[in-house]
Amino acid sequence: MNKIDHTTIHSETLMANAIRALTMDAVEQASSGHPGMPMGMADVAAVLFNRFVTLDPSAPGWADRDRFVLSAGHGSMLIYAVNHLLGYADMDMDQLRRFRQMGARTAGHPEYGHADGIETTTGPLGQGIATAVGMALAERMQNARFGSDLVDHFTYVMAGDGCLMEGISHEAIDMAGHFGLGRMIVLWDDNRITIDGATDLSTSTDQQARFAAAGWHVVAVDGHDVEDIARAIDAARKDPRPSLIACRTVIGYGAPGKQGTSGIHGAPLGAEEIAAARATLGWTSDPFDIPREVYELWHDVARRGAAAHRAWADRLNAAPNRTGFLASMATPDAQRLDTAINAYKARLSADAPKVATRKASEMALDVVNAKLPNAVGGSADLTGSNNTRSKGQRAVTRDDFSGDYIHYGIREHGMAAAMNGIALHGGFRPYGGTFLAFADYCRPSIRLSALMGVPVTYVMTHDSIGLGEDGPTHQPVETIASLRAMPNLTVIRPADAVETAEAWQIAATATTTPTLLCLSRQGLPTLRIDHTQANLTARGAYLLRDPAGGRDVTLIATGSEVEIAMTAADRLAEAGLQAAVVSAPSFELFATQPDAYRAEILGSAPRVGIEAAVRQGWDLMLDRDDAFVGMTGFGASAPAAELYTHFGITPEAVVAAAKTLTQK
Amino acid sequence: MNKIDHTTIHSETLMANAIRALTMDAVEQASSGHPGMPMGMADVAAVLFNRFVTLDPSAPGWADRDRFVLSAGHGSMLIYAVNHLLGYADMDMDQLRRFRQMGARTAGHPEYGHADGIETTTGPLGQGIATAVGMALAERMQNARFGSDLVDHFTYVMAGDGCLMEGISHEAIDMAGHFGLGRMIVLWDDNRITIDGATDLSTSTDQQARFAAAGWHVVAVDGHDVEDIARAIDAARKDPRPSLIACRTVIGYGAPGKQGTSGIHGAPLGAEEIAAARATLGWTSDPFDIPREVYELWHDVARRGAAAHRAWADRLNAAPNRTGFLASMATPDAQRLDTAINAYKARLSADAPKVATRKASEMALDVVNAKLPNAVGGSADLTGSNNTRSKGQRAVTRDDFSGDYIHYGIREHGMAAAMNGIALHGGFRPYGGTFLAFADYCRPSIRLSALMGVPVTYVMTHDSIGLGEDGPTHQPVETIASLRAMPNLTVIRPADAVETAEAWQIAATATTTPTLLCLSRQGLPTLRIDHTQANLTARGAYLLRDPAGGRDVTLIATGSEVEIAMTAADRLAEAGLQAAVVSAPSFELFATQPDAYRAEILGSAPRVGIEAAVRQGWDLMLDRDDAFVGMTGFGASAPAAELYTHFGITPEAVVAAAKTLTQK
Repeated sequence: MNKIDHTTIHSETLMANAIRALTMDAVEQASSGHPGMPMGMADVAAVLFNRFVTLDPSAPGWADRDRFVLSAGHGSMLIYAVNHLLGYADMDMDQLRRFRQMGARTAGHPEYGHADGIETTTGPLGQGIATAVGMALAERMQNARFGSDLVDHFTYVMAGDGCLMEGISHEAIDMAGHFGLGRMIVLWDDNRITIDGATDLSTSTDQQARFAAAGWHVVAVDGHDVEDIARAIDAARKDPRPSLIACRTVIGYGAPGKQGTSGIHGAPLGAEEIAAARATLGWTSDPFDIPREVYELWHDVARRGAAAHRAWADRLNAAPNRTGFLASMATPDAQRLDTAINAYKARLSADAPKVATRKASEMALDVVNAKLPNAVGGSADLTGSNNTRSKGQRAVTRDDFSGDYIHYGIREHGMAAAMNGIALHGGFRPYGGTFLAFADYCRPSIRLSALMGVPVTYVMTHDSIGLGEDGPTHQPVETIASLRAMPNLTVIRPADAVETAEAWQIAATATTTPTLLCLSRQGLPTLRIDHTQANLTARGAYLLRDPAGGRDVTLIATGSEVEIAMTAADRLAEAGLQAAVVSAPSFELFATQPDAYRAEILGSAPRVGIEAAVRQGWDLMLDRDDAFVGMTGFGASAPAAELYTHFGITPEAVVAAAKTLTQK
Repeated sequence: MNKIDHTTIHSETLMANAIRALTMDAVEQASSGHPGMPMGMADVAAVLFNRFVTLDPSAPGWADRDRFVLSAGHGSMLIYAVNHLLGYADMDMDQLRRFRQMGARTAGHPEYGHADGIETTTGPLGQGIATAVGMALAERMQNARFGSDLVDHFTYVMAGDGCLMEGISHEAIDMAGHFGLGRMIVLWDDNRITIDGATDLSTSTDQQARFAAAGWHVVAVDGHDVEDIARAIDAARKDPRPSLIACRTVIGYGAPGKQGTSGIHGAPLGAEEIAAARATLGWTSDPFDIPREVYELWHDVARRGAAAHRAWADRLNAAPNRTGFLASMATPDAQRLDTAINAYKARLSADAPKVATRKASEMALDVVNAKLPNAVGGSADLTGSNNTRSKGQRAVTRDDFSGDYIHYGIREHGMAAAMNGIALHGGFRPYGGTFLAFADYCRPSIRLSALMGVPVTYVMTHDSIGLGEDGPTHQPVETIASLRAMPNLTVIRPADAVETAEAWQIAATATTTPTLLCLSRQGLPTLRIDHTQANLTARGAYLLRDPAGGRDVTLIATGSEVEIAMTAADRLAEAGLQAAVVSAPSFELFATQPDAYRAEILGSAPRVGIEAAVRQGWDLMLDRDDAFVGMTGFGASAPAAELYTHFGITPEAVVAAAKTLTQK
């Protein structure tokens, strides 16, 4: 270990060079990775953490910590290096040595849950900045409820050119500007390089003017001038608007032969260039070796954060609203909700209303939201169509964050990412709505919900050709299959108001899985007229009609098509064929049931699957010789009833299919 | 029919009122639809068509027509009314009477191919403006090749607040500004109303400043002042930059009780309000009745267009580059390509290179692009990773549109929509690349490619955990299934360089189906060492290894996993089990084969499916009792070979599965 001459190198430059050195070493060791961004933004990171960021590595989940989001996730070595230097216990040097190796916490891109201090998974560009909007919004919403003594932190984002070119960034920026999220600060790595070459190959946007147009405070700095950086962050923290700090940097700063080129973006430097960089930076330690005095500089940051954490804990202990605050951060009271849902289900079974499941969802939300005071609703400008606003919900506005309903605007992608951010921040359980066909618009963020295991709820209405006249652009036919394909996403398509209530019970109490509800536009009868205490939807599929003398055929349907199956079963009975009807609201939940249960439900008789969508995914329920009544292509524009007839999704078609199968 | 007093009503207001009247009548008749936008933008439409738009309803496909894109597709009655008034033969009054009814051309949202004069399908917000960027880019690219005598038209877009809030609009605007597409003019329906209420519920962006930041010419007008509108369009046409005309309008203009509110956005007005609107507008004709003099005004527009068309046809006939121009608009010469591909395939089978299929794709493109001079490549900033740039391709720039390679920037969604626009414009066959995991980012535009039947090609590389260290955010596991679920999309995952060449032959000659190629990052051996003239990939699946004495088991694999299947077959043979190996590059193409062929390929022996992805979709190939070796959840970050071992996608696993099945 060599001594560093403090008299010639600024302490924050030393802190930055430690990031650079660790980045070069880890990428070289892995023979894989992205050194350009961490080396270019190292000075910004050093100043940001040294002077501003408040967090406590010994208590990574401290509620009032500042949030740091590395939106340019390919630069993952920046956050791994910083967290190592800060002293996070789970980020020892061995993790850096095993960068991008099997089982290491140091994945290629930062993965939420793999290591402490990683606030969200990033890598798909633009997701970080959009998720951070949700975090910053949640901070203001919690602040409005519990005051600045308990909730008073910043959300810092490092973003690259890619993040700002992605469409989702527009939705995020627009939303942050609209809500006036002044505690959100984006540090843009303005290095003018993308993978294909200089940014002027593909973009000419004046980013500073663009952010200003969205209501942001904007400032430009030399990203290698520590005092310039500090002044800008200080100004950003004081400005009531969200802030963009355009940090003019040199990608791969410090590597004399490769800096400033796209060649250093995503490849190891090589031994020779690393040696040259070390000479340039005056860095004389061995690979993966950090001088004690550099550790001390970083540990000072952690000590400052720990002191802030202690002061906060004292305030919390003395706070009159301590209990409420802790309750908002806790997992939902499932027992309390169960009692309420069961009373509601009993009423439904007795009243047997005919309502669209989107309306039934609103009815269920009135029950759920009354028991879960930290629910936050919203819609991508389809509130009246998605039926997402329950009784008494008030809009969140830039002047009053105490509300619990968010007008996300016509921004499905931004909504989904913001919901991830709200959930990750803690204190709230977000749900948001759009049309099911537009799940495609937010699919990258749904995927991150699933990958991270964040329990947000997607309320997706108008779930089939049953929406009618709006036509094929609005009619999901492949959408349900595409969502069922995604790991760790619970897709539920309830058949009536009772199943919808059960679906909401599942969604509202989920802890590590997002839930996506597929809800009808059209009215549907209540089919669960026999009340059950048990949540049958949680089994994924169950026997709704079970002929006493055994079955000749099993009809399996979901959502609005269960009614068709029931009608077909009646007609088959008239024709002397006993049909069981299985309602199958969630394939994912059914797949997790014991083999014996699944075998009992599916039975040994021939089966007909019925869903106004493509067959893909039904192999869980059907054998190849079984029949399927559904869609084989895109929909059409016409009244819903005519479409069902046109595409042959009718009781008659089911009866015919059942007869053909049973004659074999 | 009543006489209209021309002395008191401006002729363009009359033209506009015809749009309003037809909109009210059609929506009322359908009891469904969106009157607000057509009524609000009717004056803008009247001026735009009356004074500027050049098209010929008697020749809807005339190459040099102006393109008109109704990005706010819910306002479909605007384009149906305009096209009816202009005299499009297929848009008679009966079509308007049957708005949104089964089989009518007047679908709820404008559907490409349903009626003449509909340049693209719109409805999913933001798609129109982003598709139009491709049209405007194609216009400049064709202009650079064939000159202003043959190619010299404008692309007009009507967009609403929703279009401008969607993220894709950012990608589109940024791209149009970057390329300086001065012939693209966006007329923004600035009515300050969205479905949930006033726009200030959800957005505070200064749209004019935003467009200016992206390099656009911006002008604001009173959207009900015909001279103001005309001045703005005239200025926009003259400005070398793309133009935004912010048209301050009243939604539902003319309906005195409902205009200016979100209530008129998407619901019929009702008889009483229609009567009040007619009185307000001075419109005295019966429903679905247009005064002859109003038709005359609109037919004048058509006559002007027809004259322009005749003059253009004369120029074309006299043009020295007539043949080249017509060839660029024609379908590809499949025979010429077949000869070249076959020679190339023969070389490959002889040389048997070990290359990643992404690299094999580049090699195939060298062959394809040499034979199809109107191919236009590109990538969303991953040129070197997607291997999309073939020999000699030159970048398209704002100063030189004669190139044939587009740096789309980090804008997957904008790229996909622009490719749709380029293909719809005609004259080019576009393809573009990104990582397969990021198909999610452009899925809404892929869906429109499929729905419209536009033959664009998606080059999606890094198609499995085989990409290694970048980890789960970048590793598609459910993506292939989600794409196979989509109707009318040919997904091809080739196993080696020969199949990749065949895949490109399919993609390059497709006429009504988009193609999506899933290509490996990692090197793969050539498995098709016996050259076949026939394109076996076009069968979807075929026997790569067919044991002479019959099969004990059939191994079915795609892409990089076919190599694993072949190795497993060798090991099984050593153990005395005869395994057939089926390479199945395209499930969609296989599904269209005759039953007998499919039965022959699948055989009657037990089967093992192998794909480094989820099983969903494999029901086409497997029965429920068959085995599948693949993924069940998200991937991980580690070197590729270790990931295959970790997730159990190995010859050993296949051998074990085959042995278990055959012991049954």
